[in-house]
Parts: sequence; structure tokens; C-alpha cells
Amino acid sequence: MGDYYQMWKELGMDLERHDEFLAPVPGLYEDLFINQKNRPRAMEYFDFVVSEIHGLRVEELVNEKKNGNLVVSSFCVFVPEELIIAAGGSSIGLCAGAQFPIPAAEKVLPRDLCPLVKASVGFKLEKICPYFEVSDFVVGETTCDGKKKAWELLNEYIPTYVMELPQQKTKASQKLWEAEIKRFKEYIENKSGRTIDSENLAAAIELINKKRSVLQRLYNTRKVDPAPISGKDVLLITQLAFFDKPERFIEKVTTLCEELEQRVKEGKGVVSKGTPRIMITGTPMPLPHWKIHHLIETSGGIVVCEESCTGTRYFEQQVPEEGRNLDEQLASLAQRAMGINCACFTPNNERIDDVLRLAKEYQVDGVIYYNLQFCQTYNMEYRKISKALKAEGIPVIQIESDYSDSDTGQLKTRIQAFLEMLQG
Amino acid sequence: MGDYYQMWKELGMDLERHDEFLAPVPGLYEDLFINQKNRPRAMEYFDFVVSEIHGLRVEELVNEKKNGNLVVSSFCVFVPEELIIAAGGSSIGLCAGAQFPIPAAEKVLPRDLCPLVKASVGFKLEKICPYFEVSDFVVGETTCDGKKKAWELLNEYIPTYVMELPQQKTKASQKLWEAEIKRFKEYIENKSGRTIDSENLAAAIELINKKRSVLQRLYNTRKVDPAPISGKDVLLITQLAFFDKPERFIEKVTTLCEELEQRVKEGKGVVSKGTPRIMITGTPMPLPHWKIHHLIETSGGIVVCEESCTGTRYFEQQVPEEGRNLDEQLASLAQRAMGINCACFTPNNERIDDVLRLAKEYQVDGVIYYNLQFCQTYNMEYRKISKALKAEGIPVIQIESDYSDSDTGQLKTRIQAFLEMLQG
Repeated sequence: MGDYYQMWKELGMDLERHDEFLAPVPGLYEDLFINQKNRPRAMEYFDFVVSEIHGLRVEELVNEKKNGNLVVSSFCVFVPEELIIAAGGSSIGLCAGAQFPIPAAEKVLPRDLCPLVKASVGFKLEKICPYFEVSDFVVGETTCDGKKKAWELLNEYIPTYVMELPQQKTKASQKLWEAEIKRFKEYIENKSGRTIDSENLAAAIELINKKRSVLQRLYNTRKVDPAPISGKDVLLITQLAFFDKPERFIEKVTTLCEELEQRVKEGKGVVSKGTPRIMITGTPMPLPHWKIHHLIETSGGIVVCEESCTGTRYFEQQVPEEGRNLDEQLASLAQRAMGINCACFTPNNERIDDVLRLAKEYQVDGVIYYNLQFCQTYNMEYRKISKALKAEGIPVIQIESDYSDSDTGQLKTRIQAFLEMLQG
Repeated sequence: MGDYYQMWKELGMDLERHDEFLAPVPGLYEDLFINQKNRPRAMEYFDFVVSEIHGLRVEELVNEKKNGNLVVSSFCVFVPEELIIAAGGSSIGLCAGAQFPIPAAEKVLPRDLCPLVKASVGFKLEKICPYFEVSDFVVGETTCDGKKKAWELLNEYIPTYVMELPQQKTKASQKLWEAEIKRFKEYIENKSGRTIDSENLAAAIELINKKRSVLQRLYNTRKVDPAPISGKDVLLITQLAFFDKPERFIEKVTTLCEELEQRVKEGKGVVSKGTPRIMITGTPMPLPHWKIHHLIETSGGIVVCEESCTGTRYFEQQVPEEGRNLDEQLASLAQRAMGINCACFTPNNERIDDVLRLAKEYQVDGVIYYNLQFCQTYNMEYRKISKALKAEGIPVIQIESDYSDSDTGQLKTRIQAFLEMLQG
């Protein structure tokens, strides 16, 4: 990485802790990503992005800010990034996938809380995330109890705006979300000093729809056997979708898709045909949480689909572009959320349909139901989802884990046994 | 208890498990309640109610049902019992405070879940709660992740209607709750075949307001030193408020209040003046969860206030009676909820105000912040509440516990040390 110490210092970061945090990343990345076999050439760009993860992109955002543009960070696929972009701002989905800042967070949060929530707060407390430091404010949401209460705490350190996502999908709930979208629009206008109009919102909707489309195109290439790209690489790309400049990201993923589609045409895969094809369903895997994919793909399997917020839940739902005026466009933005089948909703039977559909579309041999520790909603949905999968004859195991390495050995054993069973 | 075996059998209960469950109750009750010193005479009625807890009251409900009236059970102070009563039904707040049914629940629910949620489901799975069995349906709400997802499971065993309580108190959130109240009214009408009109609703509102008033009157007697009644007895009465026939309950608590007010006049207390006065704040203590009160009151303290759903959060908010028509009355019902400061809301700073106000009103020497294991929302609010209490010079400790006896020794030691510190 270039010399960004001056920038980090000016952002108010804790340089010493930041060095400690970043030190193992290049080695880890080499082991986990660079050393993979048959990697697509176009992954080079994403390797570069990771090598500059706290550098170049942050510098861009610092410059955006100098030009008077908003930088807004968030943690959830429900936050309508289109509104931020319509007002000339940048939308960043923050890191929350590392063990490093968790001990700091546990000084102010209970231990028996989801690691994602703890890491989210910990990154701010530790002052080791330049995206936090460059952000004008954070947007939280009410998708789970842990997050909901964590925003109250986070707000003591950085302005944290909270959107109330409803918990059902009734008409009245949808109305609440429409009202929340409007309230957020006004907040963005107020903070940015820009007016969101039908024109700039249409452009933003089109742009983010394109980002989601290109992710869908990428995912489509995984539907064939052999898959032309590892699950780990796709996970990384989906994680970076929350960080990168949308226009550039779209261009680079498009280039990658062309390469992968060529591979598919030639029948070339990143693994041999017949390698057990795994779908992961459950909680998100924020950057740099690659543990489960790595375990699967070094145990003889390949991940071909993620039914998660760092997967299909991020891109499958588009915002309808037919809105003829601002009101209709805002309603369309609200509508997208109602199509996302997160465990925060009750009931959430549509997620069962999604999982069964995706298992077919991606020719899945087995499903790993993954949930972060203390994530009550996803943990409790395992029962219904696994029942439905078993009824269809699709093998499934549940894995509960956190960001630490303490359970790696045990997980490896279970995953290997599962993959052997699939091949048996 | 009389011979209710035939009734229980007809309700489809598991008689063997039910016997096992009830067997220790009389001895426990004797130890915990009857053996207390200086008990008010009027507690006799409540002792009788407990002795008949699965008998006489259930028989009443069975008869109500025979007469074509609804029996509806719920678990939360937000559920508007007034609507059930307006339609001629009975509203029961179910037991969820025992360890006994938890192992059964853990077969279908995660272990790392709040014991209240596990017990709620466990009572149904075990078929040992006659109130469940006599109910036409259950009303759940979205006050926490655990409950929200548990209703989906419970619905497989008994029809479970879910009300979406919002998570903020904005105008849009309030509108959602008003819509939910209306939806519930229609559901009740549909299930009961009765029309809820301005007249029967006014009567129900008046009745339940009276129930809340008499609880307030009871609590008022605890504001003086020495308190005329133990915390354990008041907790029991508040728990029974969810079960008993409202008219009779009001009458019996009124009689008790008269006796207590006489005690206050005479300066007579259930303990001596100067006994450390404790407020408990936090999660509810459903029947028969008396552990914490018992530990405090056998360690030299007295509980004088509970800021909880089995305490002030149940009765301090009244439904305004000025509504001139059904729409206004329904809006008033909705309004009550917005005044209850449950940790399910974000932000919930009004709870800080409540705790500080109650500490003064009840002349509290120290506060025990109590939360059930894995209750993320209340656990996370400890930080703000304790800060505010400390700023006012009011000592506070946090106790996290469940329904088992495994931590009794350790809790006793901590509580004794806290009480000694208060006296020091």
C-alpha cells in the first residue's frame, strides 16, 4: 500500500493499532486468494482493490468530501444507497467481519452478542477503519435487536441515523417503510444541501440496478458445472460491491464476467466437474470474513451460491424503473425491500422458497446453513429451512460460528464429513 | 386443589407431566410466601388463587367458552386486552416463568435464547398449561427477535396471531400501531362473531383502567418506609393481574389496599424502618419466577418497586377515556403503547427518566438491574441506565439470570454484598 499515513493521521485514526490490524492481511490474502488454482485473470483488479483497501478508495472519498459531497456508511442491504448517490454522495457498506476490534467492543457491549454487531462498533472504538472516519454519518436500521441497540451506543461516537425497517410485510408495514424512505430522503437533502429530484434519483436507481445486474450475471456463471470461479473470489467481489465506486465496479465485474462466460463456453472450471457444489444460506459474511468458504474449498467442495446479504439478498431484487415522478420512485425504492426475505421479517416463508429455488438454479449438492453466534433470527429459521430442504432430498448441516479461529479444526472436520457424505 | 383431572383430560393435557410440574408448587409456595412475617391478612385471597391456579380459574374459562365467549392468551403488556374484553372474551397473560418446560423447548429452539421465550413455547409442547389448552388462540408481538421467531414455531401447535409493534415512536411508527390495533379488532370480531362498538369498548377501557389504577394504588403504599407489604407479595399480585377475572381482582386488591393504607397510617411495616429499599428494573418476571425477590428479601432487603412489565410498565399508562367514537377509542388504545418505555424501542431514553423518577418516588436505596439471559435489548440498555443512576448517586448492580437454581448461591453472595454496601 502507498504512503497514506498522513491521510490516516488527518482522519484521526489510531495509527499504531491500525498497523497492528493490517499487518497480517497481505500474508492472509496471499494464502487464501492468490494461491488458489485456475484463478480468472480479471481477479487482478480485485486483488489490487484489496491491496489498497484502506488507501486509494479512502483517498477518493476524502477528495469527494473536499468537493462538498457526502460520504455515508451503513451495514445493511435495506439502506437505499440510491438516495445517497442521487444527492451526489458516496455510499459505503462498512467492514464488520474481523475479530480484531471485538475485545474493544466487549468493554461496552455484552459478550453474548453477534460478532458482526460487536465488530461494527469495535472498528469505531479502535479508530482503525478509515471509512468510518471519513463518513459524515452512519445509517443504522432495526433489522435485529443487537444492531438496534448498538446504534444507540454508536451514536455517542459518530452521528448515527436509524431507519425503522418493519418486521412484517403487511400494507401498514409497507407504508411505514415508505415513510421511512421519505424521512431519509429529507435527512440526506438536509445534510448534503442538495435536492433529490426525479432526474438525479432516476440516474442513481439505474446505476445501482446495473451494479446488481452485473452481480447477477456473475452469479449466473456459477450455475454450471464446473463453476468457472471459486466461491471465495465471488464472496470477495460481493463484499467489495459495498465499497467500490459503482461505475468502476460495474466495468471490472463485466470484464470478469466475459472471461468467465468464455470459460463456461469452453467447459473450463476452477475445479473439476463433479466437485460437490455447496450453497451457503444464512447470515452475511462482511469483509474480511472468508473462513467458511475457505474451509469448504480446501476440503474438496466448491461454493456456488450464497443466499445471504453478501450474496443473492443483495442483488436479486431490483428497483422498478418505471416511476414517473419522485413519489413513484420513492415508492419503488420502498418496494424493493419488501422483496428481500431477511429473517428480520415474520413470517418469512418466502425465504424457504428462495432457498429451494436457488438450490435448483445453482445445481446444488448440499447446503450449509451458516449463522453467526447469537444471531437469534437466522438461528431460529434453521428449523423450517432444513425441514424444507430435507423434504426435497437436499442434504443440509448447520454451522454456527464467529470470527475467531478457535473452532476452525472442529468446523473442518464437520465440513469434510459433510462433503464426503455428498460424494458417497 | 379440587379434582380437576376430568377437565384437564378433556383439555388434552399431559396429566402425568402436569402432576410432575405441579408437585413441588405447594411446598415452594409455603416456603416462599406463607412463611413470610407480618403478611397482610388480605393476601389470603391470592394464596387461594395460587392454590387453585390450574383449577377454579380454568374452570371459569372453560365455562366462558361453553357460553360462546373467546379465551385469548398473550405474553406482553402491549397486547390490548380491552378489545378482547369488549367482544365478551377473556384475556389471559400466560405463564412463562418456569424452568420445567425448558428442556422440551430446547429440542426445537436454540439453547442460547431467553428462558421466557423458551418457557412460553415449552409450556405448549409439554401440554402442562391449561390456559394454553383452553385458549382459542395466542396473540404474539414483535417486541424482540426471540419472541418474533418463536411465534412462527408456536403457530404450528396453536393458532398464533402476531401484532407488529413498531420499534420507534415516530408518527409513522404510531400509525403502524394504530393500523395493527384496527387489524386486531377485526380479527377479534371475526373470531368471536361479536361487534366491537363504542359502548362495549368504553366499558372495557374503563374496566382495565380500573385494574391498572388499583395496581397503582397498591404500589403507592410501598412508597413509604417501612413498606407495608413485601415485594414478593406485590410481584405475585401483579403476576396474577394477567390471569384473574378483572372485576374480582379489582375488588380483592382494593381490600388489600385498605389494609395496607391502615398499616401506613399506623407506621406499621412488613419490615423495620431503615431496611434497604430496592428497586428492580429490567425484564419481566412471569409466574412462577420469584427467585430474585426471594433472594433480596431473605438477605435483609425489601423490594419496593419493579420497573418491568410485571411492574410499573404494566399499569402506569392508562388509556384516555375521552374517545367519543370508535376511531378515537382505537387511537387511544394505540396511544397507551407509545407511553410504555420498553427496551424494544430505539431510542428509549424515556426509560432512563422513568427509572430516575421511580427511584425518587419509592425512596429507593439501591437498584438491581435484572435481565434474563440472552435478552439483548435489556442487557444493552444497562449501560445508559446505570450511568444515569450513578450520576444521581444511586448504587446499582446488574444481575443476569435464568429460571434455574444453578446460580442461586452466587447471586445470594452478590446481593448480600450489595445490601451490606447500602447499609455501610
